[in-house]
Amino acid sequence: MPEMFKVLPPAEALKVWFDHASPFPRVESIATEEALDRVLAERLTARSALPTFARSTMDGYALRAEDSFGATESLPAYFSVIGEVPMGRSFPQTVGPAQAAVIYTGGMLPAGADAVVMVERTQKLDAANIEVLRSVAPGENLVYVGEDVKEGELLFEAGSILRPQDLGGLMALGITQVSVAARPRVAIISTGDEVIAPGQTPNPGQIRDVNTYTVAGLVARAGGIAVPCGIIGDNYQALLLATRAALENADMLVISAGSSVSTRDLTADVLNALGEPGVLVHGVAVKPGKPTILGVCNGKPVIGLPGNPVSAMVVAGLFLVPMLRRLQNNPRPLLRQRLTAQLTHNLPSVPGREDYIQVKLVEREGRLWAEPVFGKSNLIYTLVKSDGMICIPLNSNGLYQGEAVDVELF
Amino acid sequence: MPEMFKVLPPAEALKVWFDHASPFPRVESIATEEALDRVLAERLTARSALPTFARSTMDGYALRAEDSFGATESLPAYFSVIGEVPMGRSFPQTVGPAQAAVIYTGGMLPAGADAVVMVERTQKLDAANIEVLRSVAPGENLVYVGEDVKEGELLFEAGSILRPQDLGGLMALGITQVSVAARPRVAIISTGDEVIAPGQTPNPGQIRDVNTYTVAGLVARAGGIAVPCGIIGDNYQALLLATRAALENADMLVISAGSSVSTRDLTADVLNALGEPGVLVHGVAVKPGKPTILGVCNGKPVIGLPGNPVSAMVVAGLFLVPMLRRLQNNPRPLLRQRLTAQLTHNLPSVPGREDYIQVKLVEREGRLWAEPVFGKSNLIYTLVKSDGMICIPLNSNGLYQGEAVDVELF
Repeated sequence: MPEMFKVLPPAEALKVWFDHASPFPRVESIATEEALDRVLAERLTARSALPTFARSTMDGYALRAEDSFGATESLPAYFSVIGEVPMGRSFPQTVGPAQAAVIYTGGMLPAGADAVVMVERTQKLDAANIEVLRSVAPGENLVYVGEDVKEGELLFEAGSILRPQDLGGLMALGITQVSVAARPRVAIISTGDEVIAPGQTPNPGQIRDVNTYTVAGLVARAGGIAVPCGIIGDNYQALLLATRAALENADMLVISAGSSVSTRDLTADVLNALGEPGVLVHGVAVKPGKPTILGVCNGKPVIGLPGNPVSAMVVAGLFLVPMLRRLQNNPRPLLRQRLTAQLTHNLPSVPGREDYIQVKLVEREGRLWAEPVFGKSNLIYTLVKSDGMICIPLNSNGLYQGEAVDVELF
Repeated sequence: MPEMFKVLPPAEALKVWFDHASPFPRVESIATEEALDRVLAERLTARSALPTFARSTMDGYALRAEDSFGATESLPAYFSVIGEVPMGRSFPQTVGPAQAAVIYTGGMLPAGADAVVMVERTQKLDAANIEVLRSVAPGENLVYVGEDVKEGELLFEAGSILRPQDLGGLMALGITQVSVAARPRVAIISTGDEVIAPGQTPNPGQIRDVNTYTVAGLVARAGGIAVPCGIIGDNYQALLLATRAALENADMLVISAGSSVSTRDLTADVLNALGEPGVLVHGVAVKPGKPTILGVCNGKPVIGLPGNPVSAMVVAGLFLVPMLRRLQNNPRPLLRQRLTAQLTHNLPSVPGREDYIQVKLVEREGRLWAEPVFGKSNLIYTLVKSDGMICIPLNSNGLYQGEAVDVELF
């Protein structure tokens, strides 16, 4: 049982994997309404200005600003009211000297007028006349044409993830259909003679499948479609057949490999038989997660995760999630869900590998503390009991108690 | 056009609203596989231990630890190999004194054995005999029964949001079905004579609906089901009929109100007619977002959002999202997506209200800076161009350039 990995640092391993996986060609056109959190596949510019007409931001009177110049409470300016601007329509008249039109927030500025005076700065004299008690500048209390977006302005780069306000921004311009990256289909296969489906009752020596479900959750959160493909025993022919079938209907394949050296070798052999170039990386300098396999088979990325649930989740976060972003052509650096907290314990490490430690967040004396949740990497509940993870960098001897650490939340 | 709000601080307004909205009674039973990001409606304890048998964490030999005591490279201990532990099954024999069984990672510890020695610490003598070059302690290289979860142990409190690893943890124990809070149905109505559907071409004075879509996105992200109910003109009867119909098929109602005082009054009147107790809060001390209406009609929460898209989004984040969490019985304080950054500008404010400012994150000299995106609250693209928001607290005069601020990411 020889262990002969060429162990790569995570960043280097990811680069090798990325270099061999082509950008994802599949895009689809969907209703903007359905595009929340999808990745835009086109660069969008504004075909028209927003707004297309000057709008009032106040309830008040539209008028010519110059007619109000010099107006004060003691020396008001007089205006005759020539009508009311209807909401959603243009005002049929032109506002002339010393004339005003009633206007509401969002109303369209009438021709002739160039400002709005707030109702609170006016005094009604009679049904047709008002006093204006303060001067307004041209453009005051208005949104002008193109103030939100100018015609031809860049709206979104390709690769943007569409957030709630982005949907609103698209709709404001009448862009009701968008081209987005198709959600990558990720086939997931669990392997191991000892692994059974969660609905079954285990005999002595058997355990229920965990990794299919943690990985499916991560895939869904990263914008992919998880396609669970069942559990395959430790048999080369069976695994080769199952992975070949799974990869045919998917854009990417995840094999939750057995943890023993022999089953890891099985996964590697199957990857090499599945398609060119096969295995690219066998082993990464990360704890937990060293026995990771990264490959590409006929243009489709394949990853062999370690069987231990904690290792599988760390490795999926480090490699599977970035690959899913790449497959969706999403180049924007991820603003990950992070918090800064202080470490409750010393955490020694060994230079030459990245260590990932699960932590619980606790608030004490108004401060946020990160408390390590120690546990072997085959215990799924160390993850369940944790709020996030911290990373001890590649060339560090460890972290000190009290040190500020970045916690990546689950 | 009188403005007669009794303006409440946001926290106080939320409390009033919460006090009148009953906890949500609807739960549903779904497959654990489908339960990602859902809120658990039951408290779950372990009906069995995990694992149910002691498992090896290494490839090596299972043996009685005491037989290895004192073994060194120069003075090894001798063992006869009596067989190999099959994966997923128990070993049919008992390991006796000076006996060992081949075992792989994840294999079930045979009867008689109490430790595993790593294969790297052994030397093969012949087909049936090995030397052990280092002593092992009882329990070494093992996961013992219940080490992950003990029988009867608390797994999840009701109200937990199920993350990827939580699904795995449930599956590990055979919990393939869970009771979760039903996703609240949130009806959304946009109002305004000037508002048209995004697919239509606006005439002068008309604008496309934005808020239905930003709100729908926020609702979906907070676990609700958005039910867009169209656009209603500024007409009391029409709005009353539409809101009544919408609320019948929903758990909550959002009215994106017009921004002028008269249409705000319309929304309040409709709320009071819809059901008891009607309007609870009319105006909150927040900028933008002051003309917010919070109400409860026959047990169902109703919110009147300001019409300006930026105000609507700020207010939806402050009130709608927490209410959606409450309706799902999710008491766990939200670990919001936050980053700390340094402010690029002075930001004056007025004590007595909370100010929300959109910011863009920029990295300069290795530091993260929050750069305010100034723009009127009726410009949707100030939100599109922003990465997040910062809050100037209720009783602050503002924030200083260079100050560290919490940025809540969109």
